[in-house]
Amino acid sequence: MSKFASFVDSNQQFKIQSAALPDLQEGEILVKNLCTSLCRSDIHTYLGNRIEKSPTILGHEIVGVIEKLGPKAPSHDLRGKALEMGDRLTWAIYASSPNDALSKLGIPQKAKDLFKYGHEKITEHSHFHGGLSEYTILRKNTPLIILDNNLPNEIASLINCSVATVAGAIRLAGELKNKSVVVYGTGMLGIIACAMAKTMGASEVISVDENLERLEISKKFGATKSLLPTAIINEKVDIVLEFSGALIAMENSIKILNIGGTTIWIGAVFAQPPVSINAEYLIRNLLTIKGLHNYNNTDFMNAVSFMEMNYKHFEFEKLIKKGFVLEQVDAAFEYAVSNNPFRVSIDLA
Amino acid sequence: MSKFASFVDSNQQFKIQSAALPDLQEGEILVKNLCTSLCRSDIHTYLGNRIEKSPTILGHEIVGVIEKLGPKAPSHDLRGKALEMGDRLTWAIYASSPNDALSKLGIPQKAKDLFKYGHEKITEHSHFHGGLSEYTILRKNTPLIILDNNLPNEIASLINCSVATVAGAIRLAGELKNKSVVVYGTGMLGIIACAMAKTMGASEVISVDENLERLEISKKFGATKSLLPTAIINEKVDIVLEFSGALIAMENSIKILNIGGTTIWIGAVFAQPPVSINAEYLIRNLLTIKGLHNYNNTDFMNAVSFMEMNYKHFEFEKLIKKGFVLEQVDAAFEYAVSNNPFRVSIDLA
Repeated sequence: MSKFASFVDSNQQFKIQSAALPDLQEGEILVKNLCTSLCRSDIHTYLGNRIEKSPTILGHEIVGVIEKLGPKAPSHDLRGKALEMGDRLTWAIYASSPNDALSKLGIPQKAKDLFKYGHEKITEHSHFHGGLSEYTILRKNTPLIILDNNLPNEIASLINCSVATVAGAIRLAGELKNKSVVVYGTGMLGIIACAMAKTMGASEVISVDENLERLEISKKFGATKSLLPTAIINEKVDIVLEFSGALIAMENSIKILNIGGTTIWIGAVFAQPPVSINAEYLIRNLLTIKGLHNYNNTDFMNAVSFMEMNYKHFEFEKLIKKGFVLEQVDAAFEYAVSNNPFRVSIDLA
Repeated sequence: MSKFASFVDSNQQFKIQSAALPDLQEGEILVKNLCTSLCRSDIHTYLGNRIEKSPTILGHEIVGVIEKLGPKAPSHDLRGKALEMGDRLTWAIYASSPNDALSKLGIPQKAKDLFKYGHEKITEHSHFHGGLSEYTILRKNTPLIILDNNLPNEIASLINCSVATVAGAIRLAGELKNKSVVVYGTGMLGIIACAMAKTMGASEVISVDENLERLEISKKFGATKSLLPTAIINEKVDIVLEFSGALIAMENSIKILNIGGTTIWIGAVFAQPPVSINAEYLIRNLLTIKGLHNYNNTDFMNAVSFMEMNYKHFEFEKLIKKGFVLEQVDAAFEYAVSNNPFRVSIDLA
């Protein structure tokens, strides 16, 4: 019997339950979870701001070790390394057929047969698919990568959501060398974006937030300058990465672009009033707006490489509140809501 | 003394005037104009819907022959062909330094020292820079291309504005092979876009316009289906090329995109109410909006190649009202306004 935290809705506490691990099906891998961090979307679900099919197992920023390979399980990871028992893994939040039309277009996270860890209902035939659990059963077609042993668990758990999404935004932004970049929103993704943009050679990385403390922190993660939202309007930059989801930030993200500039919108994954765009301005300045939700295999690989190469250069540990175990999941969420750290981590090892 | 049609403002008729051709300066080429077609922006200027510095020489869709090469004039065209007296040329609407930062980014049409044929004021030191004239003096840094002799003048004159702008839109759209494409607006650019998209391998090319006659014509230029604006909303496509400039078309262009789709806005080069965008929809569907104004050297070269290879496959001649000469320029504009053909051509040969 293996433990997991069952979530029903925001009016009920988590239920720590046990269930027998099912036999592995074709292509599946049993992973013993080591660590799961609470993503902002988990907290929104906890608070009732977004609704998941339930009962469910929340948590998708997970790291774990291979405990058992099922029949016809993959033999190698995305980087071509042979999989062995005990290998420590990160895996994409999605499993979907590589033959789907959208997968072939580089958008596997929207493929028709999409399965998303931490976002699925517990049913008789589908269980152990979230991070607030002792185990995860990795489905067929889950992109996975064996991690460098030196990378701490709490940092590694950020890779498959925060870091990979930022890697997707950076891919959409194109070449960053000698470019000026604005990062709207200095939550976990914005902070990683500052670090990644700087590492990729951006000449200037301007972080923007209402939170002065977070602005200061962003400077330790690559931001060369930080500004309050009211002050940013005088800048002109090549690239904007918009993680805040604020309407005014999206509208400004267009106004502050240089000719030929690009703004990537990532943050606004919730309903809000429409963004107003001056089409003539967009056209005459040859501007681009790109929306990004989640990430693809390339982004996931780039995220792993970035963290393996750079986790020592930036103090990610300081952004993570550790010390909670599975039985304390309610307390962990309450801590996240009350204290608003960048991440709260659940130790499952 | 050489003739030109001087335009002051929409309240006055053109004045057919004469002036001495100045000595050629460094890098300049004297071109005897053969043919100029009236672009929609010329007609807007004629009607007073847009204001040019004046007096000016309108007309930028021009084709002409080299009459004289100035000191240090370029020796070769963009395709590497040696320039000789009598060569028939098309040239970009812009001349700008290739060393400008924007030129290096592939946006020479927005470089700091930009000069635009058909859009400049006549001054003591700047003359013969428009198509409604017997001659054009090509400035230093004007991209130019020697044309295939078989291409008729009236068709060749379309290249350096209509066709090249469409080539720019097609470049921004990316790979078209087996993609479904909607073309909003079946004016000259929309018609060329249908032809180019189909030629590039689009699986479906859907033209959209309120004008049923033009919709029918678009089918002869590559459209596989044509729809009224009210009927398009049920389609889902990979690419939208928006030439109409209509607010509702831009808003719809986002709603009809498949996941990962791209809409290119080209038409709305005038002030209008803001376009409303649902950011969450844009993000969750990984959509892209790109603005395009004018074109770059690559687009210009692609435009020439496209017309040289395809002018026989589509009946462009049927879209052009010929027979006007320079002295009839008022009548030509009146004809354009009253009869709204795709293009009115002025014979200068």
